[in-house]
Amino acid sequence: MTKASGRRSRRPTMVDVAREAGVALSTVSRVVNADPTVGAEFARRVQTAIDTLGYRPDEQAQQLRRGTSRTIGVAVREMSARNPLMAEFERGAYASGLTVFAASTADNEERERAVVLSMARRGFDGVLVEPIGPDHSYLAPEMAAGLAVVAIDRPITGPATDAVLADNAAGIRMAYRQLADHGHTRIAYIGDHERIFTARERADAFRACLRADGRPVTDMVHPGETEQARISEALRAVLSTESPATALVCGNVTTTFGVLTHLAAEVPRDQRPAIVGFDDFPLAGLLDPPMTVIAQDSPAMAHAALELMTARLAEPERGPEWVTVPVRLIARGSGERGPVVA
Amino acid sequence: MTKASGRRSRRPTMVDVAREAGVALSTVSRVVNADPTVGAEFARRVQTAIDTLGYRPDEQAQQLRRGTSRTIGVAVREMSARNPLMAEFERGAYASGLTVFAASTADNEERERAVVLSMARRGFDGVLVEPIGPDHSYLAPEMAAGLAVVAIDRPITGPATDAVLADNAAGIRMAYRQLADHGHTRIAYIGDHERIFTARERADAFRACLRADGRPVTDMVHPGETEQARISEALRAVLSTESPATALVCGNVTTTFGVLTHLAAEVPRDQRPAIVGFDDFPLAGLLDPPMTVIAQDSPAMAHAALELMTARLAEPERGPEWVTVPVRLIARGSGERGPVVA
Repeated sequence: MTKASGRRSRRPTMVDVAREAGVALSTVSRVVNADPTVGAEFARRVQTAIDTLGYRPDEQAQQLRRGTSRTIGVAVREMSARNPLMAEFERGAYASGLTVFAASTADNEERERAVVLSMARRGFDGVLVEPIGPDHSYLAPEMAAGLAVVAIDRPITGPATDAVLADNAAGIRMAYRQLADHGHTRIAYIGDHERIFTARERADAFRACLRADGRPVTDMVHPGETEQARISEALRAVLSTESPATALVCGNVTTTFGVLTHLAAEVPRDQRPAIVGFDDFPLAGLLDPPMTVIAQDSPAMAHAALELMTARLAEPERGPEWVTVPVRLIARGSGERGPVVA
Repeated sequence: MTKASGRRSRRPTMVDVAREAGVALSTVSRVVNADPTVGAEFARRVQTAIDTLGYRPDEQAQQLRRGTSRTIGVAVREMSARNPLMAEFERGAYASGLTVFAASTADNEERERAVVLSMARRGFDGVLVEPIGPDHSYLAPEMAAGLAVVAIDRPITGPATDAVLADNAAGIRMAYRQLADHGHTRIAYIGDHERIFTARERADAFRACLRADGRPVTDMVHPGETEQARISEALRAVLSTESPATALVCGNVTTTFGVLTHLAAEVPRDQRPAIVGFDDFPLAGLLDPPMTVIAQDSPAMAHAALELMTARLAEPERGPEWVTVPVRLIARGSGERGPVVA
């Protein structure tokens, strides 16, 4: 490999090689792809041009030829939120000879669309999407053109795709039951905004728990934005009524963090409610009290996503499949405290 | 866009379109790129084939033509570890019209090489790498062929590249000084393995602190693997001597978590050493005691990385530049406890 002479602002392309060698682009392509039908003289001229320019054969030419990139895109809300799942998915995909590239959508519909389309247009074979908005019609033509789509954590509305979901309703029922079993009769829910499918499932399941126990729903269910100010406001609402909540279910990790932050700053230790949080997190066991959580089975979800993706790539016309993965309660202390008597 | 008839196992390519239309590949390319010199009859035939097959113009063809992808790859140890930095970098890049795709290297040299080469061969314009091994000669031909490389957190050895580093030595000095100022004379260090540049810088800086204070270095500095067993072993070593350490500097977040886990399980609360951890983390302020940390300035590091990348893309021949970003001490409590009298 000879370094190209002079200054360049971009990598040399096959077009540059064709120009340098004075041959057709298709001839360069045939030489790069070791087509034996290329004449010796043409092959020599192309090779000389390749050496002169420092051209490096790339995946793109191979993709154009093969029609497959062995590349899967991952478009998730934020890289860290699903990290154990992402890491598992990446590990499994890598072991299967697939390359995985991830981009975050920052919970922004427009950015999701841009990210996913950019993956599709780069010839990625499939995308694993944590979908955001209510409209995914932009995916339909990409899917028709062969893009494999698997939704993770939430289903896609519009085109029918494979999806891997956690059993949100069962998780909420476990959380509620754990608190009720420890003597709580005033249990409140604070969680993410219901425009998100997962948040909606969780809030709905919580309402169903209250109703099943014949308890009032009003004022006890607080879905909404997960900014600290909104979470603090919801907490104040449930803790400062005449019959305050003695226990809380937090609908996701961000909410759990917000609740813990607020309680640490504003509520004396012995007045704090019992808590069960949805989703486990590092250090949960080192908090005081250690946090009881509903944990998703990230390895199982990653495994299911990779299986669906692989099946979809092998058989593009198969019917869409939803996989719901069980969750489990990890009792560590915060959910096993009895009600504080006011 | 018409859905292609029958079953397909891959996206249709320009080659398929050329075959369907009975024209040369270059003709398809010219039609897709709206070349006005294509004859009307050819253009019509190509368009019909495109509609029949459901071919979608892709970024790759455009890349081959333009010689630039406006795409930056990010290859980091794990997606979450550098998350605030990654998120900032991605946000900034996205705002500049660049697409960012990330892949994790899982701290594995071979995987780093595979990931970075796969980015280069897909025509990514640049890569932001958190380098692992001691040998990065594989990057030289890619850089010669135009790949912009910026190292993050650690410099690349071998080819000279841009790099963004945290001021590790200053951070360790702040941590040591904070503990010494609170009365500690037996301060130990537990951190990551010294094969990693950052870990080496931190351990070396710590040794220098001990020497500057005329204190013995032997047995007080424990770099190594960050598995729980090794961390517990190092902790036992420094806490169970005749003159045990009364304070600890933890070299990275994984070490901090391991130390906290061990202490929670095996050391009574009132016997625990003071701690300053390198790198901040969520919930650090909610632990008991709240964790004092050396915090990297992730937004500044991300900003510097994007600036270096942009400068490199604009001017490939500019000299390599290293940017060292200051760190700061966040005193929360764990580093401000005096020595426990045994």
